[in-house]
Amino acid sequence: MDGFRDIAHLGHVSLLTPRPEESLEFFTSLLGLSVVSSSSGVWYLRGYGDYETYCLRLEASDRSGIGHLALRTWSPEALARRVEWLRGACVGGTWTEPEGGKGPAYEFRDPDGHFCRIYYETSKYEPPPDTRPAMKSNHSRYLGVGANVRRMEHVNLMASDVRACREFWEAGFGLRTFEIIRNDDGSEDGAWQSSTAQGHEIIYVRDHLGGRSRLHHVAFWVDSREDVLRAADLLNDAGVPIEAGPSRHIPVQGFYLYAREPGGNRVEICSGGYLAFDPDDSPVVWTSAEYAAKPGWGARLPSTFRTYGTPPLGAPEEDDVSDWPAP
Amino acid sequence: MDGFRDIAHLGHVSLLTPRPEESLEFFTSLLGLSVVSSSSGVWYLRGYGDYETYCLRLEASDRSGIGHLALRTWSPEALARRVEWLRGACVGGTWTEPEGGKGPAYEFRDPDGHFCRIYYETSKYEPPPDTRPAMKSNHSRYLGVGANVRRMEHVNLMASDVRACREFWEAGFGLRTFEIIRNDDGSEDGAWQSSTAQGHEIIYVRDHLGGRSRLHHVAFWVDSREDVLRAADLLNDAGVPIEAGPSRHIPVQGFYLYAREPGGNRVEICSGGYLAFDPDDSPVVWTSAEYAAKPGWGARLPSTFRTYGTPPLGAPEEDDVSDWPAP
Amino acid sequence: MDGFRDIAHLGHVSLLTPRPEESLEFFTSLLGLSVVSSSSGVWYLRGYGDYETYCLRLEASDRSGIGHLALRTWSPEALARRVEWLRGACVGGTWTEPEGGKGPAYEFRDPDGHFCRIYYETSKYEPPPDTRPAMKSNHSRYLGVGANVRRMEHVNLMASDVRACREFWEAGFGLRTFEIIRNDDGSEDGAWQSSTAQGHEIIYVRDHLGGRSRLHHVAFWVDSREDVLRAADLLNDAGVPIEAGPSRHIPVQGFYLYAREPGGNRVEICSGGYLAFDPDDSPVVWTSAEYAAKPGWGARLPSTFRTYGTPPLGAPEEDDVSDWPAP
Amino acid sequence: MDGFRDIAHLGHVSLLTPRPEESLEFFTSLLGLSVVSSSSGVWYLRGYGDYETYCLRLEASDRSGIGHLALRTWSPEALARRVEWLRGACVGGTWTEPEGGKGPAYEFRDPDGHFCRIYYETSKYEPPPDTRPAMKSNHSRYLGVGANVRRMEHVNLMASDVRACREFWEAGFGLRTFEIIRNDDGSEDGAWQSSTAQGHEIIYVRDHLGGRSRLHHVAFWVDSREDVLRAADLLNDAGVPIEAGPSRHIPVQGFYLYAREPGGNRVEICSGGYLAFDPDDSPVVWTSAEYAAKPGWGARLPSTFRTYGTPPLGAPEEDDVSDWPAP
Repeated sequence: MDGFRDIAHLGHVSLLTPRPEESLEFFTSLLGLSVVSSSSGVWYLRGYGDYETYCLRLEASDRSGIGHLALRTWSPEALARRVEWLRGACVGGTWTEPEGGKGPAYEFRDPDGHFCRIYYETSKYEPPPDTRPAMKSNHSRYLGVGANVRRMEHVNLMASDVRACREFWEAGFGLRTFEIIRNDDGSEDGAWQSSTAQGHEIIYVRDHLGGRSRLHHVAFWVDSREDVLRAADLLNDAGVPIEAGPSRHIPVQGFYLYAREPGGNRVEICSGGYLAFDPDDSPVVWTSAEYAAKPGWGARLPSTFRTYGTPPLGAPEEDDVSDWPAP
Repeated sequence: MDGFRDIAHLGHVSLLTPRPEESLEFFTSLLGLSVVSSSSGVWYLRGYGDYETYCLRLEASDRSGIGHLALRTWSPEALARRVEWLRGACVGGTWTEPEGGKGPAYEFRDPDGHFCRIYYETSKYEPPPDTRPAMKSNHSRYLGVGANVRRMEHVNLMASDVRACREFWEAGFGLRTFEIIRNDDGSEDGAWQSSTAQGHEIIYVRDHLGGRSRLHHVAFWVDSREDVLRAADLLNDAGVPIEAGPSRHIPVQGFYLYAREPGGNRVEICSGGYLAFDPDDSPVVWTSAEYAAKPGWGARLPSTFRTYGTPPLGAPEEDDVSDWPAP
Repeated sequence: MDGFRDIAHLGHVSLLTPRPEESLEFFTSLLGLSVVSSSSGVWYLRGYGDYETYCLRLEASDRSGIGHLALRTWSPEALARRVEWLRGACVGGTWTEPEGGKGPAYEFRDPDGHFCRIYYETSKYEPPPDTRPAMKSNHSRYLGVGANVRRMEHVNLMASDVRACREFWEAGFGLRTFEIIRNDDGSEDGAWQSSTAQGHEIIYVRDHLGGRSRLHHVAFWVDSREDVLRAADLLNDAGVPIEAGPSRHIPVQGFYLYAREPGGNRVEICSGGYLAFDPDDSPVVWTSAEYAAKPGWGARLPSTFRTYGTPPLGAPEEDDVSDWPAP
Repeated sequence: MDGFRDIAHLGHVSLLTPRPEESLEFFTSLLGLSVVSSSSGVWYLRGYGDYETYCLRLEASDRSGIGHLALRTWSPEALARRVEWLRGACVGGTWTEPEGGKGPAYEFRDPDGHFCRIYYETSKYEPPPDTRPAMKSNHSRYLGVGANVRRMEHVNLMASDVRACREFWEAGFGLRTFEIIRNDDGSEDGAWQSSTAQGHEIIYVRDHLGGRSRLHHVAFWVDSREDVLRAADLLNDAGVPIEAGPSRHIPVQGFYLYAREPGGNRVEICSGGYLAFDPDDSPVVWTSAEYAAKPGWGARLPSTFRTYGTPPLGAPEEDDVSDWPAP
């Protein structure tokens, strides 16, 4: 397994929004992120638990979707090794300038075309002197704003060929795969991967509309399942439709809540899920039939989960919220 | 409002089961109730928070369903007043002998035919000397068994005429009604009533199959919503199908989980919901349309909630678990 | 027991503060109350769960302490009965004008001299049309601000003669007493009383400095013990000293956190505690020795709990925060 | 940093007890571990979340304390590399036979003399067919027994020279150090280290009595802070003295509860704490003064925390439970 532990963690996601002011209001007032800096049409936001300066890069655009995702490597050498692997695998890429306190980063595309970046250099968040947290083991004060998300937890990408994407990250970056939904023909409907002990960091799910490079959702962490339930009160009263949850997923067992931010991108508020310590475990593989049988408790997901992603494709079934059987 | 505050609280429910040994195992090992005493074919069980000797009377029978529900009055005089009201209202009734440490009780039927009892005399639970709790403000030790239900919280009865039942308890017993689902023709699909500040204690829902005197469910309280979620893990792993939840109800906002005990009776594990302090509030009335529109978050209930009760009527739709729109 | 159930619940507390702007900031930004209205030097604040227009009346003053506490009666007749009882008991009192949407109220003094009011007429909070909550069963939106306190839960008063105060409320207002700390000489160090099923609403504790009419604290409710723990993060990072907790009390078993608002008044954020359903229970009586022995888990309270109240008396031991054995 | 990521996680602790039957009852009935196998005087126990066959090896002995701790390596090669490092560092060691499904293991001593083992070969727990969990992503059923601990989380060792021990694990095994309490003379009172993203796995604290190779405590994980609070109810009612907590630690911010199992060994039930993702962070270093100043909320620990360990040394101050200032 090449790249073993060269990746440290998901660093941030760049999100595109055609309604930037409203998106910004959503992420700050409702989710509780704070703006660290901004330049023309770009805002850098962080959760109170982020050690880096941002976990979300929000960019005004004429469309919704993901600009790029970025992973931090464990060291400069690890970054060099990963770039080398990409070149050896004939995956094109380019170096990008430092931005918002991170980088330089090497940008490339995953097999479905999503832009991805890897970087090592970063800046640690330093709170202004008058807003230092009580304990220096914290990165910033706990302010109690809205859903109080601590950090970004994972990103979920739609792909035509889930398996190819999964194998790309395994082969090139040493990500571990914890769970897979596998069809009888060997194709995959979903794959849950991570560079840490957390059961998900990068997820791929099948794009049933055949789109390219679309985003399914970005997920933010809260510290307890009770916090997810309170987030439902908050969003419900703020007039934000709750697309799914609160309930629990089968894969990785995360407790979830889904809504769409004003720009149209799907956002998850999550907690729970498992930590995986076994260094030589095999992925849990669910056949489509096993998964459809719902072995564990938790609500069925709406049919929009199979089709709606950003940018949307305009197919009517994307917004059909009637219940659907699986997955 | 006659009977104002003559009723103190729901005392117990007598549950009939054709599979008594398995039911007993369910209530003790999974729910965490303990058997206080028993006689031939009857078991008296309590939660760790019950001050009386039992909240559940389990009776071996050739069918499932509710034997009776019992309410404790605030005083002997209150009991006498309620019996007098029943007689004035020409509701037949009879005195029953003390049983299991409660009574004598006066037994009568609600408008749908469910047997109901009111009593004042009771016995307080005294733990054996070697199992006394650490604090004398507790009624027994916390033992950490299964779902650890603290006490029975409410009983939900199916009725052909919900409105008549609701008005019966309001007029005769001073129960307060907190929420109602009202159809355009004035009939009601559900009514949530209580003698305490808790938003539900006796609930009526429409029996869409036209049965008589059926039980929808009995509900047991756990101290947090997190406990309801853990109960889902427990039941799921014990092979008990979870009929609905964990999720949150619109009426009274209780957080719920539903399963059926081996005898077929539906059981809820619940927490949350609100306390109502306003002495002159009016019930929250939901039109069918408002309720169907799902103003709050929470999963839709399975269609079996409209039809399945105990004893079951054998209609195929009773066990249809596909999703249904309302309520 | 005269006055049986004539009292519905604690309506509000009027708090005096010599630093009104800072107190206002504390209650709104940190506790999450919102200002409903104000007049010169007086602010009316509510929690998101209050059905009335306010639970806290904040008044600029040259000293800290309690202005008055106010209880709502169950009906106009109940109010008249209580006033009649006060006159019969030769407790002086006067009617006060309606204020902030409540009243007229009858004002009198408890045996320790605290001003108390009883009233029936009130106004129900109506949110502005554009801020209505998603469900009409809620009184206002859940906004996720700071500690998100739902409502005022109880008030704790210091008194030279706890027993006299306790008996005053029992005899005249039908409050139930749930727990008592009783000394060998028959005097009492604490008494926990309520007009509802909640184990505390009005509490008296001995004023060990012999002050008169002092306030020990007002307590605000959050929905879970986890919320109390998060409030500790919030206050700690905001630079507010935490005087005690988070931990659990022996009496009524409430989970607590104590801090002082900028005006000097002690404020509790609490959850948990028990609901009491037994209509003929007797108070749990702890001897001083039993209480000092700490039969249950939970931290010992700081010595300031015996002496510090508002207005402070300036005795050095009031601010001694070293640990003390009991209670 | 030699040994970078060669260690996967803490595998188990072997605990010595002079009262094995009672210890076994404590760990199974109260903590909720289950016995997987046993041989004469040795029991292998696991939490419901363990993928290996055991996390606790309990051994009848004439004294209390730790037999050994065992760490699993990431691969056979990693194991070989670590043994090689030990030899190069002239740390004596021997191979031990496989036992209870783990091993062979290489056994050596840390600078304070605690026996430590590293191993790679292990056996994965396979539940009996009739007790398989509902989801194959779980290692066993959730049974709801007592405190329901999921797994062992960390071990805390007493040492005369904390710094030497910390540096031993950093230099030889690539453990990351997250927090240190450092005295003015450069000696250390505590060090928190881990091979995973969890903030503690191996902890050293100063043995103020100058003992050798003593155990401070072993810690078991529960899923929420609410679970720690319920464990307090459970232990309190079972008559087990609670030595400290529930409260929150400054280092790593874990929420804790401490008691001693019948054999005398201190046991922690914990939740919370942080996950650390930054690959190039520096340890948070608290000076003694900073730590004594208690920058964060949480109770002060009893003085027994400085002196009591297993085996006990019989010094009277070991059992002094009066409060002490720091740490």
